[in-house]
Amino acid sequence: MSVFTPLPESTLATWLRGYAVGRLVELKGIAAGVQNSNFFVTTTLGRYVLTLFEAIPRAELPYYLHLMAHLARHGLPVPAPIADRDNEYLGTLEGKPAVLVMRLPGQSVMAPGEQHCARVGAMLAGLHLAGQSYGRRQENPRGPAWRAATATEVRGFLPAEEQALLDTELAFQAQVDSAALPAGAIHADLFRDNVLWDGDHIGGVIDFYFAGHDSLLFDVAVTVNDWCATADGKLDAARCAALLTAYQAERPFTAAERLAWPAMLRAAALRFWLSRAADHHLPREGEMVLVKNPDEYRDILRHRIAAHPALPEV
Amino acid sequence: MSVFTPLPESTLATWLRGYAVGRLVELKGIAAGVQNSNFFVTTTLGRYVLTLFEAIPRAELPYYLHLMAHLARHGLPVPAPIADRDNEYLGTLEGKPAVLVMRLPGQSVMAPGEQHCARVGAMLAGLHLAGQSYGRRQENPRGPAWRAATATEVRGFLPAEEQALLDTELAFQAQVDSAALPAGAIHADLFRDNVLWDGDHIGGVIDFYFAGHDSLLFDVAVTVNDWCATADGKLDAARCAALLTAYQAERPFTAAERLAWPAMLRAAALRFWLSRAADHHLPREGEMVLVKNPDEYRDILRHRIAAHPALPEV
Repeated sequence: MSVFTPLPESTLATWLRGYAVGRLVELKGIAAGVQNSNFFVTTTLGRYVLTLFEAIPRAELPYYLHLMAHLARHGLPVPAPIADRDNEYLGTLEGKPAVLVMRLPGQSVMAPGEQHCARVGAMLAGLHLAGQSYGRRQENPRGPAWRAATATEVRGFLPAEEQALLDTELAFQAQVDSAALPAGAIHADLFRDNVLWDGDHIGGVIDFYFAGHDSLLFDVAVTVNDWCATADGKLDAARCAALLTAYQAERPFTAAERLAWPAMLRAAALRFWLSRAADHHLPREGEMVLVKNPDEYRDILRHRIAAHPALPEV
Repeated sequence: MSVFTPLPESTLATWLRGYAVGRLVELKGIAAGVQNSNFFVTTTLGRYVLTLFEAIPRAELPYYLHLMAHLARHGLPVPAPIADRDNEYLGTLEGKPAVLVMRLPGQSVMAPGEQHCARVGAMLAGLHLAGQSYGRRQENPRGPAWRAATATEVRGFLPAEEQALLDTELAFQAQVDSAALPAGAIHADLFRDNVLWDGDHIGGVIDFYFAGHDSLLFDVAVTVNDWCATADGKLDAARCAALLTAYQAERPFTAAERLAWPAMLRAAALRFWLSRAADHHLPREGEMVLVKNPDEYRDILRHRIAAHPALPEV
């Protein structure tokens, strides 16, 4: 969505007096994001992004903000939240929960090559390794419980063959046991539009507001499904190899992960098919969500069921 | 000094496995700094600076590292220390205390104009405001006790007229009561070579290893003595006005600070005259310190005694 909450400059200028970031120079709405209002904020001392949370409950926000702070502290290009003069990350602006974060350099690359995929694989492994020492825990908000509830909501809107696909996949996923898989804090939405490229390097990994505790391999699968897909939703072997090889150079996959890989690709595809179907069939009133085509992830799911891709050998 | 401790790439590559910053790509010594060995470190995931501490006692380092982390957390362009996988900032490399910090963009500007001075004034105020909520405390390592001890050491090397200047100034400073001045964490060495300019903006404020708890006004005086001096050591009125006006827009000076300003400029000049005289007359064995000319700060001290500059009105 674009900016939801209009924000007068004078209101922001006053609010910023609670921080040590200098005076407001420029305020600009950002026409992106799917559940928050975002603004570029330039002050006399730096460049920041301001987010007003429109939908996420306030109690869930500290997990995300402290995760971002934790990963930035470990040297990764993640938007570090800015503490106010009382040392708090989470504030209130125009009656909404609000946070100021560092603005990171770069632009998204929507047609990535093997080099991009290799760097994303290494970065994802870095996020997972750094996340292992993160002390807070909040379940993946798009995990099994959400999946079951959302499937129930959207099923009636689907044509018969898609209902059959959904039923089969839900039954399959219910049998997957992920207890043996390494888990931790995952980004869970590392799509191409959430990575900013500063030349050949990753200048920023953004939008942690779907993060949560889950299998690390699920995060890898979400990432591969987006970065390594062909236009029709199949996997591009060269990009897959580049991403996965770079990842496992930092964190080798376990035997359990090798077994679970095909199922995890399907679980990741199902998650985005469901959320897009819900956004499509059950739009929330008053929101200008950019509704993405659910068919893309239905097709990706079908391709992942048909194929049985393996993780590359070390 | 240049790099003191030679560091083989293979040693660093192994050491970096304790972090989540990816693989070593490039290691380059930095020919600058006066008491540490510094290196540019590029990895697959980012750009960092590595510092090996050659002289500062290990027990004093957490104050500096947590101060840098605190200020970075408040949105200021300070080199944030990187935590290793055990969440620790301070490590050991080649037997020395070692820290990895974020590399910040920009270059020093050695002939600053009024615009530069205004930005530095605002930044210094930002550092002071953010520093107010810093929980640790360590006295300024170049405070009154150091001043007295160093004066005793160097006095005998000075010609008679400089001994007289030193005696008079020490007696004057002994009468200054700074108890009424606002205090907090100060940088204490915000010279032109410790500010990196990224275009017109400050991309980095570096080298916090002289920081400590002291009067905020002392920090302002150190900064003005360097940024606003003419070639012969006098104060440039326009640059002073720019720096101090920008500073007090963020943190207005108190009445006690207005009274103390001339004495504080002298205290700041004395501090650098003494340290340079000590480096000149008492070089530490085996160190390749770039010895700066002590006469520059002797002359600055004389000019500050002769003049009685006032802080600008609000």
